Amino acid sequence: MKAIFEPRSVAFIGASSDLFKWGFNILHHIIERGYAGKIHPVNPNGGTWFGRKVFSDVNEIPAPVDLAIIVVKDSLVLETVRKCTAKGIRAGIVITAGFSETGAAGAALEREIVETAIRGGMRIVGPNTMGVFSAYPCILHALMGSMPLTAGNVGLIVQSGNLGSSISYRFLRRKIGISRLVSSGNEADLTLEDFLEYLEHDPHTHVICLYVEGLRQGERFFRLARRIAKTKPIVLIKGGRTEKGAQAALSHTGAMASNDGVFSALCRQAGIIQVDTMDEMIDVAGMLLSQPLPAGSRVGILTMGGGWGVIATDLCIREGLLVEPLGEAVIRKLDRVLPPYWSRGNPIDLVAPGNTRTVTDTVRILLEHAALDAVLVMGLGYMFLRARRWLMSEVVPKEAAQGPAEHLMKAELEVFGLIADLIGEFGRPIVPVVDIMAFDIPDQRGPLACLESRGITAYPSPEPAVRALARVTAYAKSFREDAPEKRDRIQAGAELLRP
Amino acid sequence: MKAIFEPRSVAFIGASSDLFKWGFNILHHIIERGYAGKIHPVNPNGGTWFGRKVFSDVNEIPAPVDLAIIVVKDSLVLETVRKCTAKGIRAGIVITAGFSETGAAGAALEREIVETAIRGGMRIVGPNTMGVFSAYPCILHALMGSMPLTAGNVGLIVQSGNLGSSISYRFLRRKIGISRLVSSGNEADLTLEDFLEYLEHDPHTHVICLYVEGLRQGERFFRLARRIAKTKPIVLIKGGRTEKGAQAALSHTGAMASNDGVFSALCRQAGIIQVDTMDEMIDVAGMLLSQPLPAGSRVGILTMGGGWGVIATDLCIREGLLVEPLGEAVIRKLDRVLPPYWSRGNPIDLVAPGNTRTVTDTVRILLEHAALDAVLVMGLGYMFLRARRWLMSEVVPKEAAQGPAEHLMKAELEVFGLIADLIGEFGRPIVPVVDIMAFDIPDQRGPLACLESRGITAYPSPEPAVRALARVTAYAKSFREDAPEKRDRIQAGAELLRP
Repeated sequence: MKAIFEPRSVAFIGASSDLFKWGFNILHHIIERGYAGKIHPVNPNGGTWFGRKVFSDVNEIPAPVDLAIIVVKDSLVLETVRKCTAKGIRAGIVITAGFSETGAAGAALEREIVETAIRGGMRIVGPNTMGVFSAYPCILHALMGSMPLTAGNVGLIVQSGNLGSSISYRFLRRKIGISRLVSSGNEADLTLEDFLEYLEHDPHTHVICLYVEGLRQGERFFRLARRIAKTKPIVLIKGGRTEKGAQAALSHTGAMASNDGVFSALCRQAGIIQVDTMDEMIDVAGMLLSQPLPAGSRVGILTMGGGWGVIATDLCIREGLLVEPLGEAVIRKLDRVLPPYWSRGNPIDLVAPGNTRTVTDTVRILLEHAALDAVLVMGLGYMFLRARRWLMSEVVPKEAAQGPAEHLMKAELEVFGLIADLIGEFGRPIVPVVDIMAFDIPDQRGPLACLESRGITAYPSPEPAVRALARVTAYAKSFREDAPEKRDRIQAGAELLRP
Repeated sequence: MKAIFEPRSVAFIGASSDLFKWGFNILHHIIERGYAGKIHPVNPNGGTWFGRKVFSDVNEIPAPVDLAIIVVKDSLVLETVRKCTAKGIRAGIVITAGFSETGAAGAALEREIVETAIRGGMRIVGPNTMGVFSAYPCILHALMGSMPLTAGNVGLIVQSGNLGSSISYRFLRRKIGISRLVSSGNEADLTLEDFLEYLEHDPHTHVICLYVEGLRQGERFFRLARRIAKTKPIVLIKGGRTEKGAQAALSHTGAMASNDGVFSALCRQAGIIQVDTMDEMIDVAGMLLSQPLPAGSRVGILTMGGGWGVIATDLCIREGLLVEPLGEAVIRKLDRVLPPYWSRGNPIDLVAPGNTRTVTDTVRILLEHAALDAVLVMGLGYMFLRARRWLMSEVVPKEAAQGPAEHLMKAELEVFGLIADLIGEFGRPIVPVVDIMAFDIPDQRGPLACLESRGITAYPSPEPAVRALARVTAYAKSFREDAPEKRDRIQAGAELLRP
């Protein structure tokens, strides 16, 4: 695994100067993203690759190689693997497709390749994989996808290359970094379970995200997951939950279908957080990385506008969270900081407060005096947007706009900073919902950047915030209710998933 | 209504030069967005507003006024309305809050204001409204929210100002224009039902979107909706669906709660498309505006990667759409254009095809020969992204990247153009799923801009595309199954919603 994720040197076999080939693009990504180890392009024609020497054969490389990335055509993979083992290479990522996913002949060839590799002391990722990304000790971007992933603490294992691209890109745009990403491909040798066990022990991985179509080792998977989920949350999307979807998965990676109800029940019992969509995976992982775990289900909803409070309340109730009335004592305390017309209920409607301390004073009173496990703060980001409008005005002179705009932006940054402080002070989640408008303005990410610099994930709408909070609350609850006899039930259930 | 949405002249009463007041911001938006009629700022102090004359009283305005926008403090609204009626103004938008939503005293004052207005021949929007946006005959941006909405064909009525902002901004970012937007506020005079009837007859409004917390005239609403939905689809979000949410709505706009099950059933019977979130509203409205209605539920899924096909199939099945196998004859025809390893099933996995005609040839064969009512095309936008990567490379010289990049971008534009052509040719929905990466790159919106210029809404993930298609399919179906006795059921049901 070290050779795969932390190689000191890489042979790239099947290097090409043709921009339309993976033999170009993956090598290009590795070099462009600044892989700090040695990279040796290999192609029988030799020559150069944009100024770099190309070896005509693996055995010509005059130095030891940790990892081979293999992009040659399908009929040449077996021979290439043989040469790699002769060179003493311990790990290979076989990008090339056209094996077990195409039928019996492909499957036979795939078996031969893996047997040859293992006999020669080499382990294989794939074949038919999109590749690997690893952030530590240096960026290794050995992926088909070109999105400039950043280093972080999410480990991602996917049984589909394009979902790997789509999911990891969604992390990137929310400024959440990746520790390791592996597309497990046909899993002819190393399986999802092997990678999962690796991530368990990887100190850079704090949350594990999985896209699963079918498990080769169901029992092992749930045994591992149950152990890991106690300390590193696991967030999972299952593809092929319907019969038709499972048929599509079968033709895609040859993955074994499983009973969806059984699978979901096993996930619940193992403490795996199962989500429905890619976006939900990002929302949940971001919350796990940036907020304390809630101790219970009682949510306070703070809003700058009534409608948001209404829909957030509906969502909380539907997702099993509690939106309880505030006690008389808390209401009296809030009366001192809020305008006379405030809602006196939960949700707490601040109706676009003039004073920025209003927001954070309210949050502080709620956390100190109300029996709440988490607070949602909705309608942030508008001060910056209004200030921006003033500064861009063709009606108001710059001099008249400048002062008020700076005041407003400073005030909003203060709110964000204080929210981040309060999360630390109280050890309870305070979830910021910053309207998607703020996410869309690349030249004025002030408030978002402020949260991001504190490692806090913001949400662009009430819905994803509430859903993520509900998932995380259920996860936290599952460990409070933990009991030893659960383990046996999981093992019994896993039997059902065997082929 | 003409005075509200198409005024030739506006009195803005409560004009302020203080950037922190609505009396500044709303007036600023109207002027900055280039309202083409006459705008007359009014403030007892007179003077000027950034170079424009301010009248110290409405009756000093030396010309007729169609519409008064009232932003004075609550205690001055009654007197202001009296002056407006004396001036012969026929319509007023009362932004000012602090009336029936605050209790009995406020409610009494509100009643007096409305009675005074109506006696004087003036109709009122609000009070406690975020304002009005109207795109025809010219932009009138009389809103608290500052998002630069564009002219289009969505009519939007909201019972919450901040949801009005959030929803209309979401239309803007998807390049979907608005015809009229009204925040109905406390509905002391004009109600949501009045605005709905106006939109029925507004030729610029093709799709109607509603955020509803509570109906003042439930029976009238469903009678209208049923009539309108036959020709102009109505998309609706209900706030306050849970008991707690309804309580929040009560304190927000004083709206009457209703039984959620009854409400949803009435929506279904009236042909209203009820959606759960703001984003779903945009997805559905965009599909209604840009695609023919599907004649049935049979979906073909075309994908450039297996994982997307799997999750889209799951989604379709769960949403009640059909993903049927392809017939032998269709498979034989596709064999001629697809590479030997294609999936031979539905979803049709093209595995990142080299040739752009592959995509459109496949769509054409599917629409000509397979029994499909709609086609989803997933994984678009990647050619542009890859080309962009090449052009930005620090490894490959510009000269080497330029030609291939241009080829790829041209090829992808061709695919988008052909998809748009095929929608017109076959009169069936072809729904493009362009990964969200393409949405995020403001300087390279080539493929999206191509679709937008043809009026076609693209989707950033499989989930919203499938969900929107399912809603639109159900809407189309409800009219095929229409029967006269339904009307009576709706009227009977509406009785249940009366206070």
